[in-house]
Amino acid sequence: MHIVIAPDSFKESLSAPQVANAIQTGMAAALPNATFSLLPMADGGEGFAQSMLERLGGERFHCDVTGPDFRPVTASFVINREQRLAVLDVASASGLPLMPSTAKNPLHTTSLGTGELIRAALDHDIDEIIIGLGGSATNDAGAGILTALGARLLDGAGKPIIPTGHGLGALMTLDLSTLDSRLRAVTLTAACDVDNPLCGPDGAATVFGPQKGATVSHIRSLEQHLHRFARICHYQLGHAIAHFPGAGAAGGIGAALGGLLNAQLVPGVELLLTRTHAYSTLAQADWIITGEGRVDGQTQHGKVPMALARIGQSHHIPVVVIAGSVGDNCDTLYQHGVKAIFPIQPGPCSLSEALVNTASNVTRTTENIARLMDNPIN
Amino acid sequence: MHIVIAPDSFKESLSAPQVANAIQTGMAAALPNATFSLLPMADGGEGFAQSMLERLGGERFHCDVTGPDFRPVTASFVINREQRLAVLDVASASGLPLMPSTAKNPLHTTSLGTGELIRAALDHDIDEIIIGLGGSATNDAGAGILTALGARLLDGAGKPIIPTGHGLGALMTLDLSTLDSRLRAVTLTAACDVDNPLCGPDGAATVFGPQKGATVSHIRSLEQHLHRFARICHYQLGHAIAHFPGAGAAGGIGAALGGLLNAQLVPGVELLLTRTHAYSTLAQADWIITGEGRVDGQTQHGKVPMALARIGQSHHIPVVVIAGSVGDNCDTLYQHGVKAIFPIQPGPCSLSEALVNTASNVTRTTENIARLMDNPIN
Repeated sequence: MHIVIAPDSFKESLSAPQVANAIQTGMAAALPNATFSLLPMADGGEGFAQSMLERLGGERFHCDVTGPDFRPVTASFVINREQRLAVLDVASASGLPLMPSTAKNPLHTTSLGTGELIRAALDHDIDEIIIGLGGSATNDAGAGILTALGARLLDGAGKPIIPTGHGLGALMTLDLSTLDSRLRAVTLTAACDVDNPLCGPDGAATVFGPQKGATVSHIRSLEQHLHRFARICHYQLGHAIAHFPGAGAAGGIGAALGGLLNAQLVPGVELLLTRTHAYSTLAQADWIITGEGRVDGQTQHGKVPMALARIGQSHHIPVVVIAGSVGDNCDTLYQHGVKAIFPIQPGPCSLSEALVNTASNVTRTTENIARLMDNPIN
Repeated sequence: MHIVIAPDSFKESLSAPQVANAIQTGMAAALPNATFSLLPMADGGEGFAQSMLERLGGERFHCDVTGPDFRPVTASFVINREQRLAVLDVASASGLPLMPSTAKNPLHTTSLGTGELIRAALDHDIDEIIIGLGGSATNDAGAGILTALGARLLDGAGKPIIPTGHGLGALMTLDLSTLDSRLRAVTLTAACDVDNPLCGPDGAATVFGPQKGATVSHIRSLEQHLHRFARICHYQLGHAIAHFPGAGAAGGIGAALGGLLNAQLVPGVELLLTRTHAYSTLAQADWIITGEGRVDGQTQHGKVPMALARIGQSHHIPVVVIAGSVGDNCDTLYQHGVKAIFPIQPGPCSLSEALVNTASNVTRTTENIARLMDNPIN
């Protein structure tokens, strides 16, 4: 029996490689004759560049950039010289964990630092930049990235706006002619972990604003400003950015990258599997075990377990999912190839207990799943 | 595929029949062609009489007796006329849930009420009384039962002792000649949920005292008094009651029933299965699903999942266990026939949340177990 172990990270607890190791420990205890392939996954959120680095090899470069709240942070990107490829995460320069937990407010955060990271990557001899979206603290529709890369976002007085969600409310003129010319020589690819549009009830502000600290009135303002930005892009430049899938990723960075900078938006899981030649590994599995910190109704929108379930379904390979927590509305996952879902908590416990014990809980759970898989009755 | 569903109750949450129904709901959703037999179980603790009643039929009688803290309580027993059988639970008259949670102290609780229930049962035309041990608030080694049934437990001044764990410290003389003579005409059978002895490090006071509210100094006193009682039984009556398995059940009621009243002590699960002719049902299963509120190192000492695992092992039937909470040291259960163990909590949660959601959590968990059982790969 060959088992492919392909979990996402369990946020705030274990990295994807750590989860994969904990799963292998549990399953090997129950199935001593099984063979395993470990494919730690990422969906475009935090850790995407690291996952690519681990699979493809490369060198990590650090640089100081503008953080989401305008204080400096040290962020990083990965260069793979053979493939002339740079990989970076929005979360590294503009991520939610970089904000003080008491000061979260996506009206006033910026993606400037991500733009500065892209600029730093352009100093290397590369043909392509892959950008992992997801995990951002921002809702500026990529205004910060555009500004850092040389675009001019001006208010009614012809002065540069502050590139934040709030600042977009003053935008009158968008000029891309001053963009860093090196951008024309590279392919931009964005790894999305969601397929939401920029605006509307499924848009960046409404769906992801609350987890970034937005109140109801903040969301109303942000939504108005995103609409304003989209209208200006449409009327001044002829670009439609409001509604394509993934435009709402990373607080609208998807819209700027895909709609204005010609980036190709690809589901992160698909991108990782394609670029690391992992499809053939998956296709050889008798079982696929995946997992994520939380599995719920959102999981079907581009998260790791869903992507693997679809692959499993197309190859008739059963896919078992583990999770730190399982929400309601998971039934659709069964229809898309998930064989079974098991939460890992041994009993009632606090979140902090759960986070501390994730590795042993993953191991215990997967040992029992493996014991049940090893079933001579059927 | 035929599945036998044989869970214990989940204490403070669902009765065994409710758990069995929740399991069937989950498994039937995943396995529409499976057939099910429901065998709600009990191990001798609270609910044993009810389980027998549901399986064998009979009539329930209520009567007012002395509660564990000497306040009156209404308890009950079951009479099955065809089999000339009475069944009652220690927990009904002398159970821990009858105590105010702030006043638990096994030094001062009595099993008098259980003795009064036995006397009331003797008013019926019966040949046998089955007594479910377990769940008691007491540590009086059955002094209350003996007193209620006419035995004389006297102090140094020839006055009756108070029949509690503390009162046993004053015992000087034990006289069984005045016991209710009707006892000679009936068989007593005790259903044990534990195999602990009366005294010593595995004894009633040390192991079960804490959950009944005993402090370390209480336990020291109780242990001394149990030893005193055992010595008096030995020297005055020639009965060795301190060390046989099950003597420590229900705060030492096992010792009084088995050592002094000629009761046969039988593991509760075995008794239930034998008397309800359930072994043949179990033997026809392709899978056995069982469960209990908590599964841990104690489970192997006579609890429902362990008893079923042994039966499953002897018939080569895989046994899957679900639990509200899974402790450490469950590995021995695997050696004794448990195929796999799954806790039911969907994620971090409080005990009160867990108790409220037990039914839906059981259903979700067993649906996923069933999905994994239904595995065309192997």
